[in-house]
Amino acid sequence: MKDDRIFCKLPNGVIPTNSIYEDDEFKVILDAGPASKGHALILPKEHYADIYELPEEIAGKAFILAKKLATHNTALLKADGFNIVQNNGETAGQTVFHFHLHLIPRYKNDGQMIGWKPGKPTDEELKETADLLRI
Amino acid sequence: MKDDRIFCKLPNGVIPTNSIYEDDEFKVILDAGPASKGHALILPKEHYADIYELPEEIAGKAFILAKKLATHNTALLKADGFNIVQNNGETAGQTVFHFHLHLIPRYKNDGQMIGWKPGKPTDEELKETADLLRI
Repeated sequence: MKDDRIFCKLPNGVIPTNSIYEDDEFKVILDAGPASKGHALILPKEHYADIYELPEEIAGKAFILAKKLATHNTALLKADGFNIVQNNGETAGQTVFHFHLHLIPRYKNDGQMIGWKPGKPTDEELKETADLLRI
Repeated sequence: MKDDRIFCKLPNGVIPTNSIYEDDEFKVILDAGPASKGHALILPKEHYADIYELPEEIAGKAFILAKKLATHNTALLKADGFNIVQNNGETAGQTVFHFHLHLIPRYKNDGQMIGWKPGKPTDEELKETADLLRI
């Protein structure tokens, strides 16, 4: 736990939160500035700044927990859909540098639009990018 | 594999794609209408419509793969950030009903804004929602 980082204090109980779930490795709290009713955050108790630092084992467990909570929260909130979002780096909208997964229930006419403008690369551009990234 | 579903055909090679990775359970292809250069999709080869249908084991493996590819793709593309997004239901922007994880490299001034307008619930409203969802 790094004392200077608020998201290290949240999952470890240093600052009171609206917690909805806790186990040995994670705490799940409500986002205080939610996109919608029930917007929650999965936080590992250990400090990892982002997906790059997150150990594989914790990554796997985090998304299994996301699946469970998506199901649980959708049912209890009577949500119409669900976004799972994870941001890394200021350019990607990350504002707190302790890894977190956003669990965002969606409702018809909730006024949010979580998406992007689709680009129109040429077939050649796509092929070049695929050639660069292929493992 | 369901024959009537395009995303069942993509990971199973029925329709040609710009594939960047493949193993026994997943295929990773470039999104043909990308948010940014290198926008890729992790697709399980088996058919699951969404996070609700996805088995826990596949969920865990999918996010471990997302972590690996976020690291790999960020480095090769010299990206400045990275969003991981997973949508469930039309209300949440899901357009193809075969589970997929969006891997979106981000670049300074790429013109995208993947986020939401933060709400301002009262402390009482947050507490009520937490009481409803708490496990």
